[in-house]
Amino acid sequence: MELDQKVEIATGIDSLAQVTVQVGINLKPGQQLIVLSPDGGVPIETLPLVRRVTEHAYRAGASLVTTLYADDFSTHSRFRHGNNESFDVGADWLQSGVARAFQEGAAGLFLFAGNPNLLAAEDKDKVARASKAHLRARGPMSTEIFNLRTNWSLTTAATVAWAQLVFPQISPNDAVERLWLAIFKAARLDSSDPIATWKAHAAKLNTRARAMNALNLSAIHFRGADTDLCIGLSDRHTWTSVFMTGENPNGVECLFNIPSEEINTVPDRDRVDGYCRMTKPLFSDGVVIEDIIVRFEKGRVIEATARTGAEVLRGLLKTDNGACRIGEVALVPNSSPISKSGILYCNTLLDENAASHIAFGQAWSVGIDGGLAMSADELLRHGANQSLIHMDTMIGSAEMDVDGITATGQKIPVMRSGEFVEELASKA
Amino acid sequence: MELDQKVEIATGIDSLAQVTVQVGINLKPGQQLIVLSPDGGVPIETLPLVRRVTEHAYRAGASLVTTLYADDFSTHSRFRHGNNESFDVGADWLQSGVARAFQEGAAGLFLFAGNPNLLAAEDKDKVARASKAHLRARGPMSTEIFNLRTNWSLTTAATVAWAQLVFPQISPNDAVERLWLAIFKAARLDSSDPIATWKAHAAKLNTRARAMNALNLSAIHFRGADTDLCIGLSDRHTWTSVFMTGENPNGVECLFNIPSEEINTVPDRDRVDGYCRMTKPLFSDGVVIEDIIVRFEKGRVIEATARTGAEVLRGLLKTDNGACRIGEVALVPNSSPISKSGILYCNTLLDENAASHIAFGQAWSVGIDGGLAMSADELLRHGANQSLIHMDTMIGSAEMDVDGITATGQKIPVMRSGEFVEELASKA
Repeated sequence: MELDQKVEIATGIDSLAQVTVQVGINLKPGQQLIVLSPDGGVPIETLPLVRRVTEHAYRAGASLVTTLYADDFSTHSRFRHGNNESFDVGADWLQSGVARAFQEGAAGLFLFAGNPNLLAAEDKDKVARASKAHLRARGPMSTEIFNLRTNWSLTTAATVAWAQLVFPQISPNDAVERLWLAIFKAARLDSSDPIATWKAHAAKLNTRARAMNALNLSAIHFRGADTDLCIGLSDRHTWTSVFMTGENPNGVECLFNIPSEEINTVPDRDRVDGYCRMTKPLFSDGVVIEDIIVRFEKGRVIEATARTGAEVLRGLLKTDNGACRIGEVALVPNSSPISKSGILYCNTLLDENAASHIAFGQAWSVGIDGGLAMSADELLRHGANQSLIHMDTMIGSAEMDVDGITATGQKIPVMRSGEFVEELASKA
Repeated sequence: MELDQKVEIATGIDSLAQVTVQVGINLKPGQQLIVLSPDGGVPIETLPLVRRVTEHAYRAGASLVTTLYADDFSTHSRFRHGNNESFDVGADWLQSGVARAFQEGAAGLFLFAGNPNLLAAEDKDKVARASKAHLRARGPMSTEIFNLRTNWSLTTAATVAWAQLVFPQISPNDAVERLWLAIFKAARLDSSDPIATWKAHAAKLNTRARAMNALNLSAIHFRGADTDLCIGLSDRHTWTSVFMTGENPNGVECLFNIPSEEINTVPDRDRVDGYCRMTKPLFSDGVVIEDIIVRFEKGRVIEATARTGAEVLRGLLKTDNGACRIGEVALVPNSSPISKSGILYCNTLLDENAASHIAFGQAWSVGIDGGLAMSADELLRHGANQSLIHMDTMIGSAEMDVDGITATGQKIPVMRSGEFVEELASKA
């Protein structure tokens, strides 16, 4: 890497850290900050970003910043040498500790930066069991996060193995640089004032969500290549973006995904019917699941096929009772900057913001009107799905048409050929 | 570093990891293992040792190995940019999580490898407050450790900053190499079968401890340069080594310090009188405390002076009510291999095994007969001191004479000129 490129990357990393701390997490003086990953620890390789995050957090008044790291070699070591019985064990003590910290007011930063292929060569059964054990262990922590009980954010960081998967034709160094630059662009850091840019962008997404709410829909209907899917919405659904303007329980505004292009809401877990072809592959613990077609009946997946990885897909959908139902439906225009990059990132945070998507598993309670104050039982009564998993799968494309359907059966155009209709487009 | 030196270091690191897992921790199949540091996280620089430990742990049947890392840059960042109020905050959520894991049967490995000078340039008041906040946070975890409720061990790893402090005249690379070689020698890895060597050495230390117990002492008297110190022993004291032969609550043998050369027991916290000159400097959060002289009356320090760092020393002795009393007295022959190296390691684990020592603060309940099953109140009734700190300070030297004193006032020679008298020497 040339010196000026190194400077550009370092500057971008600092800017990403600053935006994440100040707008994403919106860290308040006196809060602890925990940096971790949805999978557990963050790769040690993300140290340059973690250090910038740590400094920005202390400058913003953090009382203590603690980063939980993971080391790929150690993860592999378990699969190479561990006893078979060990794969049902998770770090409950650690995840419960994080849950406690969130309950006591700590803020969270999740870095979604792992190597999607890390466990590709390992035994599939052990991988699935270890993943499920981790999902169980992090359950109490996830509850805090899905209910937005504290201010938190999720962002990403380029790592060599991931970059090589995205850009296999170029050198590892060049691949990392190119991935960082793509992340910076996706995170809108190329503007003169990224913090102002993010505040404006988030406000526009919220305006679009309000416009969707004004339509007062009962269902939403996706039509495209191999797709004819009608998704009933919760009777209390509300469209939101990832920008919480203080209605979350601790009252601190936060923007819980950086980048983000979506508005989303909560489907009725029992009213999803039809079929769809996923428009991007899924990456699950080193397995690439391609050309997925899923068929729903009364909310449940009754058929799931894929050209590769079908067994893993079906295993994921059997994680628990809620894993074969959806907890989120999200709309992203095909013209989103991430989509326009034309890159398949093999990373949910980036790929889900390039296309409309549905998520198998857990619903966000913020997508239910009043949901943040509801018990799990109340949320369920309003159709909000519950599961240990939350697996976003992309269904949007340049061919997708989306209609809203009101309680009286009126059809209202929402998207045509992958873009919001003019009235909704102008909201963002 | 030359190739053959690199191989020698890598081989030594692997051997240290193996001895630590198999003899130190004596990890049992199905146990989780947590790798951490008494100060919090282990330096990321110790990754080569952590990876070997992780592999040996999985080979021994570990269900999950979790390492808590710390990053010196991030630690500095807090002191440079953090709010003043932040320094009274510790990671209670994390340390309590570790305590829970130990309660539920996880094993522990502590790496004592930090840079002794890390915080030398930082504000002394903030350093002291941050240290106390950490001691409070780790309290529940320390309780598990001091009461040996699980099998654990403490060892060390060479890092650049530490090595440069020990060997300031040579290059950083050479310093790290020399420190590793000194650690390997101290850890008796130069024998043909280090595991058998450790088992034999530990058994000999236990034999020496039993010989001390047979003397049925009431007190122990140190005489040397500027030293005339009489330490009354608990009415239930028992001499032990760091080798627990299964009498610990979870019944798993472990050797909780590698290396170790000491036998030790629990003083009566109210019966310590006289004065002593410490024979090695103390290192506390970047401050070197040199030429310490301490005077006791009825167990309490009534005067503490030092040529450098006296304020920090007096601050430490005021941490809590028990910090100015001692919880441990330990005997180490001046001819111990670590002492013979002639190196001042600036690292408690190594330096304390080069000289007889006393520890301010918390007592080990294993040094009280039946103490592992006693409540904190019962332990206190038998004179075992309680504190958030446990600070070993070296008093042994080639000039030190030590006598045991029985309840009837009989004097029994224990050490002469820093060496055990023949009868006790032959026990080890």
